[in-house]
Amino acid sequence: MSITLHYFDLYARAEPIRVILNYRGLRYDERLYSFQEWPSIKDQFEFQELPCLEIDGLKLVQSASITKYLCQKLGYSFKDPYLNYLTCSLVDVRDDFITKKIQLCWHEKNPEGWIDWIRNDFSHILKAIERRYKHNGETGFFVGNSPSVADFVMFVMLHDQFLREKVSEKMRPILESAAPKLIEFVESFKNSSETLVNYLSNRPERDF
Amino acid sequence: MSITLHYFDLYARAEPIRVILNYRGLRYDERLYSFQEWPSIKDQFEFQELPCLEIDGLKLVQSASITKYLCQKLGYSFKDPYLNYLTCSLVDVRDDFITKKIQLCWHEKNPEGWIDWIRNDFSHILKAIERRYKHNGETGFFVGNSPSVADFVMFVMLHDQFLREKVSEKMRPILESAAPKLIEFVESFKNSSETLVNYLSNRPERDF
Repeated sequence: MSITLHYFDLYARAEPIRVILNYRGLRYDERLYSFQEWPSIKDQFEFQELPCLEIDGLKLVQSASITKYLCQKLGYSFKDPYLNYLTCSLVDVRDDFITKKIQLCWHEKNPEGWIDWIRNDFSHILKAIERRYKHNGETGFFVGNSPSVADFVMFVMLHDQFLREKVSEKMRPILESAAPKLIEFVESFKNSSETLVNYLSNRPERDF
Repeated sequence: MSITLHYFDLYARAEPIRVILNYRGLRYDERLYSFQEWPSIKDQFEFQELPCLEIDGLKLVQSASITKYLCQKLGYSFKDPYLNYLTCSLVDVRDDFITKKIQLCWHEKNPEGWIDWIRNDFSHILKAIERRYKHNGETGFFVGNSPSVADFVMFVMLHDQFLREKVSEKMRPILESAAPKLIEFVESFKNSSETLVNYLSNRPERDF
């Protein structure tokens, strides 16, 4: 299976896709575009947006739908409507989070406003996410007893925004205070996959 | 089945839910909150956001996931991963659209900027949406030969933002010029359901 991920040199909207591919140990190519070249090539992508994942002879767009497609293809999904809802709604939460970050940190160049938003508003969401995790019995997964798209998107959000070395001094205390069980989730999920640990150790350091 | 929709007195993020319920002819109650009372009650909702749909003894949140849950429960969904992707990615497109509208028209109070964005940027997306529709053989549906969440969200976006009486003078010409087949889709989808026609004739007039 030939897989190519098209994106910018960022984590942002593509990182859950990279994490799923690495968790599963799948090889893929990347085509990273500069912001300079983007305007001249954006017509090649269906909704003039990235990421785009070429897989199974298809060119998939819209990051949340790409992650769900990958998970369904790889057996990380649920058929039951309510279990499916539980996974999709956490994808929505992470999507809202990254949209807010792009708005505040990228467009408005206001990283302090973003930290304030995390402390004052998002900490309530973290508590709610922790309630979901506890409600599933602290199995190491957000839904049922196996990995799903909910685990992949929550892992990426919590690890990259709160716990990785570059941000942990400022951000880890917020997570520790609001939702400490989510730190246990991140550790447990990370250590369940050697290829994921390996990917995280070797991926390029990116700010965003 | 007892169903209650909690939202504000807006179309915005709840209208696809209302349209699905009416298309199917399901009775439901509404609890519409004022912006004044919202801060004092928002802790009652899981991620401190609306809409929330009470159904099957559950309190569902996140509008895109609620619409998908409803469609899966009511038989308007696909099991095949690629067909499922085709529907989910159009939900994402509508979600991006409404997020942009809320940002420009609500937070930035810039309705002219929003019209400019529709003309200059979103018209390319409309063309891409029309390509999807044509690619499915102009069956009257976006995916396969039966209604899906893709049809519900595209119907709401196209009808309410471009074609309903209140906005059509300014907005219909943009759609006619960019993607005329989508007007045929809206007419065909609307006329396939008497309860939907009835709902649209009788719902309260709302700006947003």
